[in-house]
Amino acid sequence: MSKANLFYAQSGGVTSVINASACGVIETARQNRDKIGKVYAGLNGIVGALNEDLVDTNKESSKAIAALRTTPAGAFGSCRYKLKSLAENRLEYERLMEVFRAHNIRYFLYNGGGDSQDTANKVSQFSLDMGFPITCIGVPKTVDNDLPITDNCPGFGSVAKYVAVSIREAGLDVASMCESSTKVFVMEVMGRHAGWIAGAAGLASEQDGDAPHIILFPEIPFDREKFLRKVKSCVNKYGYCAIVVSEGAQNKDGSFLAESGGKDAFGHVQLGGVAPFVANMIKDELGYKYHWAVADYLQRSARHIASKTDVDQAYAVGKAAVEYALKGKNAIMPTIVRGKGKKYSWRVGEAKLANVANVEKMMPRSYITRDGFHITDKAKEYFAPLIQGEDYPNYKNGIPQYARLKKELEKKKLKKWKPK
Amino acid sequence: MSKANLFYAQSGGVTSVINASACGVIETARQNRDKIGKVYAGLNGIVGALNEDLVDTNKESSKAIAALRTTPAGAFGSCRYKLKSLAENRLEYERLMEVFRAHNIRYFLYNGGGDSQDTANKVSQFSLDMGFPITCIGVPKTVDNDLPITDNCPGFGSVAKYVAVSIREAGLDVASMCESSTKVFVMEVMGRHAGWIAGAAGLASEQDGDAPHIILFPEIPFDREKFLRKVKSCVNKYGYCAIVVSEGAQNKDGSFLAESGGKDAFGHVQLGGVAPFVANMIKDELGYKYHWAVADYLQRSARHIASKTDVDQAYAVGKAAVEYALKGKNAIMPTIVRGKGKKYSWRVGEAKLANVANVEKMMPRSYITRDGFHITDKAKEYFAPLIQGEDYPNYKNGIPQYARLKKELEKKKLKKWKPK
Repeated sequence: MSKANLFYAQSGGVTSVINASACGVIETARQNRDKIGKVYAGLNGIVGALNEDLVDTNKESSKAIAALRTTPAGAFGSCRYKLKSLAENRLEYERLMEVFRAHNIRYFLYNGGGDSQDTANKVSQFSLDMGFPITCIGVPKTVDNDLPITDNCPGFGSVAKYVAVSIREAGLDVASMCESSTKVFVMEVMGRHAGWIAGAAGLASEQDGDAPHIILFPEIPFDREKFLRKVKSCVNKYGYCAIVVSEGAQNKDGSFLAESGGKDAFGHVQLGGVAPFVANMIKDELGYKYHWAVADYLQRSARHIASKTDVDQAYAVGKAAVEYALKGKNAIMPTIVRGKGKKYSWRVGEAKLANVANVEKMMPRSYITRDGFHITDKAKEYFAPLIQGEDYPNYKNGIPQYARLKKELEKKKLKKWKPK
Repeated sequence: MSKANLFYAQSGGVTSVINASACGVIETARQNRDKIGKVYAGLNGIVGALNEDLVDTNKESSKAIAALRTTPAGAFGSCRYKLKSLAENRLEYERLMEVFRAHNIRYFLYNGGGDSQDTANKVSQFSLDMGFPITCIGVPKTVDNDLPITDNCPGFGSVAKYVAVSIREAGLDVASMCESSTKVFVMEVMGRHAGWIAGAAGLASEQDGDAPHIILFPEIPFDREKFLRKVKSCVNKYGYCAIVVSEGAQNKDGSFLAESGGKDAFGHVQLGGVAPFVANMIKDELGYKYHWAVADYLQRSARHIASKTDVDQAYAVGKAAVEYALKGKNAIMPTIVRGKGKKYSWRVGEAKLANVANVEKMMPRSYITRDGFHITDKAKEYFAPLIQGEDYPNYKNGIPQYARLKKELEKKKLKKWKPK
C-alpha cells in the first residue's frame, strides 16, 4: 500500500499569514517524504474535500511553496462552511471518510478558528467510529485572536501591526490638518465580538498626545455623552482627536452602534459602517470637521506590513502540526506558549481540540483603562511583542509578488457529491 | 546686516512624502549656511507666517531633520487657507511682508498644490511692488497629481503604490472567500476631480484575472446597467469582482455617485461614501455578498509603503527649490522631467509659477480603456515607474518611528495679527 496522504484545508476568514502556515505544513511534509505521500489541499477549504476537489500540492514547485510564506489570503481558497453535527448531517461525515479513503488520506490538518477546531475534533471521533482512523490536527488561525489556551492566534499579530501603524500615520495626517480643517478622524477596525484588534491599535500611543486618543471597544457599552465629552477634551488638549472604533462597538442594549443610523431613503439599513456613524455624530454634536476610514479586508490581507513574529508563529504551527501528526498525536492543536521571562519568548505547545472547540477567549477587562477609552500598560505588554519585526515580501515593478499556484486537481475517483 | 532667512510652509492636504521635501529644503539650506541664515517653517502653513508663528528649524537636530525624509504628513502643520486676491485682501499680503521684513526673510518656499503655486506667484509680484523683493519658489506636492508641466507630483507615487498594493492584497482575500462568501469587494480611493489615483490601482492587474477588475473613474459618467453587467461577467469569469471606485465617480448629470444614496432617517445625506453605495447597489441588483473599504487618510499617510521614486523626487524638488533660489531664480517651481529613453529616468526641471497656477492637469482619455473600466497599457507605462522601489522607515517595537520635532517658535517682534 502506498504511503498515507495528508489533507490540508483553510477555513473561514483569511489572514495575511495563513499561507505561512500552509507553507509550514507543506515544506515539513516534503521533508518527511518517507512517511507522508501527497499533500492535498482542499480547493476552497473543506468544501474541496466534499467535492473531491483536491489540489495536488506536489505539482507545485518548491519556489512556489516557499512563496506562500509571504503571500496573504488563502492560496487554496477558504470557505465559510461549517459541518453540522453528526446527528444533523451524518452524510457529510461519511462523504469525508469516503473521499479520505479513496485517496488514502490519513492526516487531516484544518487551518482555522474555533469552528474549524470543532470540526477537526468531530472528524477525528467519527473516523474512529468508522474504523478508518484519521489523525486530525487543528492549525490555529484567526485575526480575532479569540482561541483559548494559545497565548495568541496566528493572523492576529499582523492585523494588530496594520492597525497600529495605520492609526499612527493617519493621526499624523490629522495633526497636520487640524488647525484649519479636519479635527476628528475615525478608523473602523474588525472584531465583531471582542476588542483585541481595536485594542492593539492602542500600541501607537507611545507618548502623551499620540494617536489614537480614543478606542471604542465592544466590551464597553457606548456612552454617548461621555464619549462626546472625551472627544471635545482631546480636541481642546491636542488640537485633534484620532479614534479607533471596533465594528463590534455596542450600545447599552447590546445592539451594534453601526445599526443605530436608521435607514436611507430606500429603506435600507444605513450603508456605512460604524466609523461614518460615529464621525457624523461628532459633527452633529460638536461641529468638528471629520474624516473616516474603514479598512475592512485591507487590514487582514496587508501582508506588506505583516508582523515578523506573526509570520514566524504561523509557519511554526503549520510545521508543528505535521510533526505532531507524525508523532502519532491526534485531536490536538499546536498553540503559542509565551515564555515567562521579561524578554518576550515563545515556543509551540499543544492543546486538545476538545478544549479549544467552541470556547471564545475574550479580552480581559484589565486590558482596558478605567474610563473605557484606551488600553492599559498590561495590555501593551501583551500586545507589543506580537507586532515585532517586519517581514517584507519581494517586490517587482513596485508591487509585491505573491505566489501564483497551479492548483492542479487530483483525478477524481468518486461520484459527484450532492449535498442534501 | 545678518544673512537673509528662508521661510518654508506646507500647504493643503498632506502626503506621505511632503516632509521629504521639507527635509530636502532644510538640509540643502544647512549646506549653504554662508548664504542662508535661518530656515523658518510656518506653524500650520502660511497661517504661521500671518500669525508670526515661525518654527525655528535651526533648533532641530540634524538627526530630527533627517528623520523627516521618512515621516508622513506635515511635520510643521499644514492648512487649508488660500490667500485671497490682492484686490480682495491686500492686508494679508502686507502682513506677510511685515513678518518677512521683521525676520529678514528673503526666500519664500511654498510646498503645495495649484493654489499654493498661485499664492507664491502673487507674493513674488507683490513683494516687488513693495520694494522688498522676496524670492518665491513653489515646491510641488499633491496626491492628486494634477499640477501641469511636471511629469508627476511628489506625493502621488506613494498613494499610487498604496492603492495598487492594497487592491492586490484585498483582491487575493476576496478570491479566497468567493466560493462560499464574499464575491464583491469595493475599495474607495481619493481623487475628487481626476482619476489618477484610481487609475494607478490598475497597476495591480498584471495578469488576466488579477484585481482590480473594474475601476470607476470621475472621467467616465457612471452607467449603471453597463456597470452591473460588467460586475456579473467578472463574477462569472473569475468567481469574484474587485472594484476600485474614485470618490469623484459621477453620474451622467455630473453629480457625485456618493450623493445618490438618499438620506437617512434623520434627514442626513447618507453617511457612507461611494464604496458602500456601489456595494449596496450590487447587492440589491445582483445579490452578491460584498465587502467594502474606504482608505481615506490611510492612503495618503501610508509612509510605511511609500514609493522610493516618490521619496527621492520629493526630496529632490525641495533641494532644487533652495538651489534655484540661491541661483537667483524666482517665481518658479521645480518639476519632474521624465527622460525619453525606454528605461525610466527623471531629472528636475523648472516651470514658471504663472504657468502652473490654476491649471489642473486631467488624466488623458487615452489612459482609460475603451469600455471605461480599466487603464490602458499607455497608462501603465506612465504610472509604473512612479511606484518603483520601497523606502521603509525605521521601526522600533514594531511601529515606525517618525520624526518628533521640538517646533520651537522664534520670538515674536510684531503685534498680534487680527484677520479681518
